Amino acid sequence: MLGQMMLEPLLIGDLIDHAAQWHGQTEVVSVETDGSKFRTSWGQIGLNARRLGAALQALGLGPSDRCATIAWNNRRHLEIYFGTSSAGFVLHTINPRLFPEQIEHVVADAQDRVLFFDATFLPLVAGLRDRLPSVRHFVLMGPASPEASAALPGLLFYDDLIAGAAPLTAWPMLNETTAAGLCYTSGTTGMPKGVLYSHRSTVLHSYAACMPDVMGFSALDTVLPVVPMFHVNAWGAPYAAAMVGARLVLPGPRLDGDTLIDLIRDEGVTAALGVPTIWRGLLEAATKRGLDMGRLNRTVIGGSACPPAMIAAFREKFGVQVIHAWGMTEMSPLGTANHLLARHKSLPEADQNKLRESQGRPAFGMQLRVVDESGVPLPNDGTAQGALQVRGHWVLSDYFNTAPGSTLSDGWFPTGDIASLNSEGFLLLRDRAKDVIKSGGEWISSVELENIALGHPDLADAAVIGVPHPKWDERPVLVAVAAPGKSPNPSDLLAFYKGKVANWQVPDAVVFTDVLPRNATGKVLKNRLRETYGATLAG
Amino acid sequence: MLGQMMLEPLLIGDLIDHAAQWHGQTEVVSVETDGSKFRTSWGQIGLNARRLGAALQALGLGPSDRCATIAWNNRRHLEIYFGTSSAGFVLHTINPRLFPEQIEHVVADAQDRVLFFDATFLPLVAGLRDRLPSVRHFVLMGPASPEASAALPGLLFYDDLIAGAAPLTAWPMLNETTAAGLCYTSGTTGMPKGVLYSHRSTVLHSYAACMPDVMGFSALDTVLPVVPMFHVNAWGAPYAAAMVGARLVLPGPRLDGDTLIDLIRDEGVTAALGVPTIWRGLLEAATKRGLDMGRLNRTVIGGSACPPAMIAAFREKFGVQVIHAWGMTEMSPLGTANHLLARHKSLPEADQNKLRESQGRPAFGMQLRVVDESGVPLPNDGTAQGALQVRGHWVLSDYFNTAPGSTLSDGWFPTGDIASLNSEGFLLLRDRAKDVIKSGGEWISSVELENIALGHPDLADAAVIGVPHPKWDERPVLVAVAAPGKSPNPSDLLAFYKGKVANWQVPDAVVFTDVLPRNATGKVLKNRLRETYGATLAG
Repeated sequence: MLGQMMLEPLLIGDLIDHAAQWHGQTEVVSVETDGSKFRTSWGQIGLNARRLGAALQALGLGPSDRCATIAWNNRRHLEIYFGTSSAGFVLHTINPRLFPEQIEHVVADAQDRVLFFDATFLPLVAGLRDRLPSVRHFVLMGPASPEASAALPGLLFYDDLIAGAAPLTAWPMLNETTAAGLCYTSGTTGMPKGVLYSHRSTVLHSYAACMPDVMGFSALDTVLPVVPMFHVNAWGAPYAAAMVGARLVLPGPRLDGDTLIDLIRDEGVTAALGVPTIWRGLLEAATKRGLDMGRLNRTVIGGSACPPAMIAAFREKFGVQVIHAWGMTEMSPLGTANHLLARHKSLPEADQNKLRESQGRPAFGMQLRVVDESGVPLPNDGTAQGALQVRGHWVLSDYFNTAPGSTLSDGWFPTGDIASLNSEGFLLLRDRAKDVIKSGGEWISSVELENIALGHPDLADAAVIGVPHPKWDERPVLVAVAAPGKSPNPSDLLAFYKGKVANWQVPDAVVFTDVLPRNATGKVLKNRLRETYGATLAG
Repeated sequence: MLGQMMLEPLLIGDLIDHAAQWHGQTEVVSVETDGSKFRTSWGQIGLNARRLGAALQALGLGPSDRCATIAWNNRRHLEIYFGTSSAGFVLHTINPRLFPEQIEHVVADAQDRVLFFDATFLPLVAGLRDRLPSVRHFVLMGPASPEASAALPGLLFYDDLIAGAAPLTAWPMLNETTAAGLCYTSGTTGMPKGVLYSHRSTVLHSYAACMPDVMGFSALDTVLPVVPMFHVNAWGAPYAAAMVGARLVLPGPRLDGDTLIDLIRDEGVTAALGVPTIWRGLLEAATKRGLDMGRLNRTVIGGSACPPAMIAAFREKFGVQVIHAWGMTEMSPLGTANHLLARHKSLPEADQNKLRESQGRPAFGMQLRVVDESGVPLPNDGTAQGALQVRGHWVLSDYFNTAPGSTLSDGWFPTGDIASLNSEGFLLLRDRAKDVIKSGGEWISSVELENIALGHPDLADAAVIGVPHPKWDERPVLVAVAAPGKSPNPSDLLAFYKGKVANWQVPDAVVFTDVLPRNATGKVLKNRLRETYGATLAG
């Protein structure tokens, strides 16, 4: 017997309609590409999204045609987020830090029909144009510019498109499983792979994101997504902010610490989202200038493991709660968020801090498990380490353009992480499966060794890799980048591990380099390091 | 093109599994029917729910068979909530305050197969037994009792059922639109009508309920649903608490102010839910005994309009935020919740208080509009009054056992309320459409006049009805119940309206009565009052 409730689809168009109707006056502050501030509102964003939907229809786009962006976090990007998906097209956000041949690959793989881009990227796009045959319309996100037209003949201008279109009176009625967005992973090996989100997965992800135990967005918040809108939908923040009518501050291209601390204070930001690298700059700028963080009460930190020292600095120096979170492009991206439980509040401070280093626990809708090498689930005892698998409403089932059924394992998505889970669902990522060091049959976490090294005052950056060893199969080697003006001694660095890990886990050697190789989203290319330093312990 | 995300159904079984797996140690405190406290946990509730599912299968129940309850808020009721729906049966909660012939009607209408009941209701059920032919199994919610068996031959006992069943290893896989629960409205006229919730509607309602701008449940909360579990699923609190792993306190049968204030303080309740009548008792008890409210930080108040004086008392005397909310059985029930917006925080206190009297604004997923008598939408300007209509993921499409398509109007559910909406979505209920007073072509809100009367110190209760008038068609009459030991003067009562409403809205007369007639959920039976006092102004 079926229930007798209204069966309305879960659609992105309803998110922007909700924000535009009931939070129409609430500000969206956009730092433009030229650094100026532009103040608009959810009402205006919603109206322009409807104009854009009409304009794309007028350009001849059909259902589910892909619309790509190469853009910063700004108001036009936000309008494109909602205008494309709500009108039945697919938003494909491209990371501008991809190599040109990777951009060429993802545009071809997606078969993008339209490419929107900020002025910053005109040279990039003009140079690539002939290698992007699927793209019929190039749209510069700004007003008309003869110089830009000269650089890219046939170029359209976003502001003209919007100005010339009567807004759609209503979004088309879509099935909730219709494709809404497409993001490509930035793997450390091989070409990026596409993840095709649906309207349903995006709306359910937004509900979960707004829960107090995740990001806790409300209409009282001013949300600053520093994480780029070209990177996994800025962790879903634009959708979640629309869902609750939060005030939104979009920071544009400049993300240095000085710029961010001013923006946070001037705009009364209450919640910010970003990766540890960004927050390092923010903490340094605030400390150097002796500034507090205004109304900021929490930062969501993910993308890579947050160093414990950073959690403590936000908390103790600035009274800002760190919500340590973990996710993946394949997961929309939210997997876990670190909020202590009621019973933890009576633990000694040191134990609470230890818990805060975990990646946190899953919200309803996300399931986690760790399995052994045969795929058998391991106990959630906080110590058993195994391969992390996930499933849920906002987890992919197949990569775009791959053979159906080739991605999941027993209905679960294998994340490629080695992790443990405790009985309360707290996840501790130990390492990427391909980076974990297998020494004499035991696993050593490269991440744990890196976190310790990053706490050494003479180091600016660090990676730990496993290199072949005649007796132990593999042993850890620390690849270190000295801080400016420092010349740390290898034996001192290794002594720094004393008492922090078991003796047999301490790296066997240190090598120095000027800069670590990283991919487009800032992940260290450890395969490159293993190639370079693989013979370090060959004797 | 469809998205490529996992398509998992939204199921109630996943709610209890989430709570049992990751919040297994979190307490559920149950005040039993005999007044004793029983401490269990989400882990144990989940295990017993799986035992119950198996036991019901063993009793021969088939898919979607209805399982009724007549019970207080306690742990066994909670296990039945999850054990029935998760196993594919339909939970039908019955209000014990219905008249016996109404109970007979709803059981027959639902075709209940099993009836669970607390010991309190053994005489009621034994007396009704022969008039409930659809019921095959009567189950007393407690341990075996020879006396009870004698009173109701063939009686089963819940604790035996659970003890004798091996827990299901997994819930059956269901379609998310499968029926999960059934509640009957308690209309003030006619027989109750059934609302058949689905798994999907219940899970989506839970996500919305947990949002900070609704009830904001988290794992840090200790939630006390004073609103009965037989009344619209205790406003969804059991499901929402499971979704986030909140600690749950179930108060049993005694809901007087003294009992509640002790429970709130002793158990560290942070969030409580209930109707104004209950909170009146709580405020009186706390004031009389000079007690604070412990860790309580918010109360969700709905069911009927919350008097402004109550909002102020909680806020100013006890530092407790009132979340004034509105909903209906037909809406699962949450429609709106009153949380001010960021911009309201800078308004003068009096303006903020005025906003707090509104029923609040809708969360994403709930749509509201007011229409004129032709069904044309009215402006959301805060003044235009019209018939309130709603639609959304947790609004009914048809009443149970009625002709499909007979309930909605143009795809919207007509609530039967007269209301206005402002541009920020704040809803102000003016009156029930059938209770609004039409005087000389103008509408007068009976609710507004009642709220003023309830602020008079000499009155214990009050209702305002429209009665026929030779010149103005209808005029308001105040039906007043004097406070104990008071003998208010009619002209003083009418003078009390001076300056609070326009002169032409002041009632024409006062009549006194000892007690107002109410239905099973406490709503005043105004049709009865209109019959009794209809000739008051006949001259």
